[in-house]
Amino acid sequence: MKNIAANAKSAFYEISRLNANDKNNILKTIKSELSFRKDSILKENLKDVAAAKQKNLNSALIDRLTLTEERILKIADSIDEIIALEDPAGEISSVKIRPSGIKVGKMRVPIGVILIIYESRPNVTIDSAVLCIKAGNAVILKGGSESINTNRILTEIIKSALSNNKLNPDIVSFADTADRSKINELLKLNQYIDLVIPRGGEGLIRAVVENSTIPVIKHYKGVCHTYIDNEFDSNIYLDIIYNAKVQRPGVCNAMETLLIHKDIAEATLPVIKKTYDGANVQLFGCENTLKILNGISPATEDDWYAEYLDLKLAIKIVDNIDAAIFHINKYGSRHSDAIITSNYNNAHKFLREVDSAAVFVNASTRFSDGGEFGLGAEIGISTDKLHARGPMGIKELTSEKFIVYGSGQIRK
Amino acid sequence: MKNIAANAKSAFYEISRLNANDKNNILKTIKSELSFRKDSILKENLKDVAAAKQKNLNSALIDRLTLTEERILKIADSIDEIIALEDPAGEISSVKIRPSGIKVGKMRVPIGVILIIYESRPNVTIDSAVLCIKAGNAVILKGGSESINTNRILTEIIKSALSNNKLNPDIVSFADTADRSKINELLKLNQYIDLVIPRGGEGLIRAVVENSTIPVIKHYKGVCHTYIDNEFDSNIYLDIIYNAKVQRPGVCNAMETLLIHKDIAEATLPVIKKTYDGANVQLFGCENTLKILNGISPATEDDWYAEYLDLKLAIKIVDNIDAAIFHINKYGSRHSDAIITSNYNNAHKFLREVDSAAVFVNASTRFSDGGEFGLGAEIGISTDKLHARGPMGIKELTSEKFIVYGSGQIRK
Repeated sequence: MKNIAANAKSAFYEISRLNANDKNNILKTIKSELSFRKDSILKENLKDVAAAKQKNLNSALIDRLTLTEERILKIADSIDEIIALEDPAGEISSVKIRPSGIKVGKMRVPIGVILIIYESRPNVTIDSAVLCIKAGNAVILKGGSESINTNRILTEIIKSALSNNKLNPDIVSFADTADRSKINELLKLNQYIDLVIPRGGEGLIRAVVENSTIPVIKHYKGVCHTYIDNEFDSNIYLDIIYNAKVQRPGVCNAMETLLIHKDIAEATLPVIKKTYDGANVQLFGCENTLKILNGISPATEDDWYAEYLDLKLAIKIVDNIDAAIFHINKYGSRHSDAIITSNYNNAHKFLREVDSAAVFVNASTRFSDGGEFGLGAEIGISTDKLHARGPMGIKELTSEKFIVYGSGQIRK
Repeated sequence: MKNIAANAKSAFYEISRLNANDKNNILKTIKSELSFRKDSILKENLKDVAAAKQKNLNSALIDRLTLTEERILKIADSIDEIIALEDPAGEISSVKIRPSGIKVGKMRVPIGVILIIYESRPNVTIDSAVLCIKAGNAVILKGGSESINTNRILTEIIKSALSNNKLNPDIVSFADTADRSKINELLKLNQYIDLVIPRGGEGLIRAVVENSTIPVIKHYKGVCHTYIDNEFDSNIYLDIIYNAKVQRPGVCNAMETLLIHKDIAEATLPVIKKTYDGANVQLFGCENTLKILNGISPATEDDWYAEYLDLKLAIKIVDNIDAAIFHINKYGSRHSDAIITSNYNNAHKFLREVDSAAVFVNASTRFSDGGEFGLGAEIGISTDKLHARGPMGIKELTSEKFIVYGSGQIRK
């Protein structure tokens, strides 16, 4: 593991010097190799799928694991989007002349060696490698053990694309192990690795945070809220809350709790229930909600913390916007939260005071996504507060250092 | 400890809502209370100084610990600089309309609860609290046990200034313990604390990194380099390298290793030695340096990693700029490094490829400082690559979240 990390660090200094054309050439080679070697990829993937079936892993997981010719070509095609992205590295900004005469500014540069730990989806292998290469970083990939054969051949393809472009193949490496203690060893190598991005379930992420001495960017879960204020546009609220819950309930930016101002609860809740009934959404209500809606389950304290990832929704009636913000900051996961309001002051108050990565007025939380926000491809979502909050794109795979242009200045 | 952290989190939501005038009023009260209660502060400080003397702590530490009337008034006056700083919180930038019709932008907001762990200097207590308050954060202060009485009264003064302004005194709290296990408990409370900034020796910082599940921003040490290129301005190089080593050798942005291009070593090294001899700088040379300079000590591998913080300097002759950059990226500490060159391409190559927080052309590394860079007061220096690199000012005590202005949009 130490060798992998040290070699990745040396390789970083090679990739970090390249201009966008050279990096795009690597990506083009990866794209064509993926199409060219698709039969070998399918063959290796079949081994993983067979093993998963033998282990009786659940069908959702097996589906995420499975590659088809169509899926491989889709992954290959998505590389074009990364090629089209502007290279953020090297950008110089904010240069100012100081009283001493030095000119001080910032230069955007690649971060270094990035360790990405993820679960079963093999497309993450290509997406992550390609985005890290484009930003000028070296990357160490640690995929789920269920997809080990697929990830092995995908990494081989990337490495041969690097070699074909006369570059160090260690720019992308593969931690080919399912041994948890080896991973913990990697997580202590902060002299070589600059950033860890874990992507997966809460258990995986907590294990990484607890064992890592390297900075980690992550999101544990998405307990997203929508708050309907007492002043609101009755033409838009039903569509927004239906979309936020129902359009794709299994993802982290789907709404899990609906908050409603007490003055409008009686008028809106029956309509809301009817709308959700059409999609078989199971509702869990606070005490006051139960007085208005019959036949729904009472919400317990646990429901306010729950990320259902399912057609389930907790509903709470609140006294005012302050109570709504308090609830979100207390029970939420700092991911994505929305207000539906026609009141100018409340819209601004909510945007400022909700302590989440993405805060919405009059829109569905489902928009919390790199593509929808205009970042291009997404490397993950952060509910941390440092470096990056919310969807992370290529710019979040770089950081800014100070640069100083002098002409002989010394400190007095 | 858990109560302190949970109360700080609640208090954060109070301070984070305030505008700059309200926050400045707190700072003004702190300033006047410091002057008003200076005799009580001196009395408490005397206890700490007496205890330190009894423990035979070294005189440099006792000096850093000691307050005088003049030092207290200087600390109080420095609050005016923070009052004068623009409040970064609430700034909205980069708002763009997306194809879906949502307007997506970023809002700069306070980070949350910040834990600052530092050693003996009591001025850090006031500086940190004041800067965190101005940025809208809550702060937990954990000062060195040698200054416990001084820190206790300083925190009391800050808390009473908060109460006098009708604010929650838990905005600033004091971890009044010397028990290491209690500190380790704090370092696991990532549900309440958003950032840890340790300031002090390498041992303290490593202990924090190893025990913390909260993001940490730090710098271990400053192994700063100056590289003299083969093309350089002979009128400026001696002043720069003298200043970088001699002006204040005990600080982290002082130069520790001088790198010299092989083509100019013979001509410059004797002049350089003579200049440093005037300040009694002890030189440690590589093998080739020893062939040119008589009577200096040989440098060992350890010297290239050394942060002397003293009138000592390691000197190495390198083949070219690539070897210089390789040496800096291998042995350096990612702090501050300079090139002296008159070659346009080499200046830009060095700025881009040296992987440090601050990279200089033709200026002394001693400029690596929040004040000199124009950040105002400094909360610390980061050699990490995430969130902040180099000197950190008030802006680095905030982060940016996404905000979305919608008008009923739903995700398709």
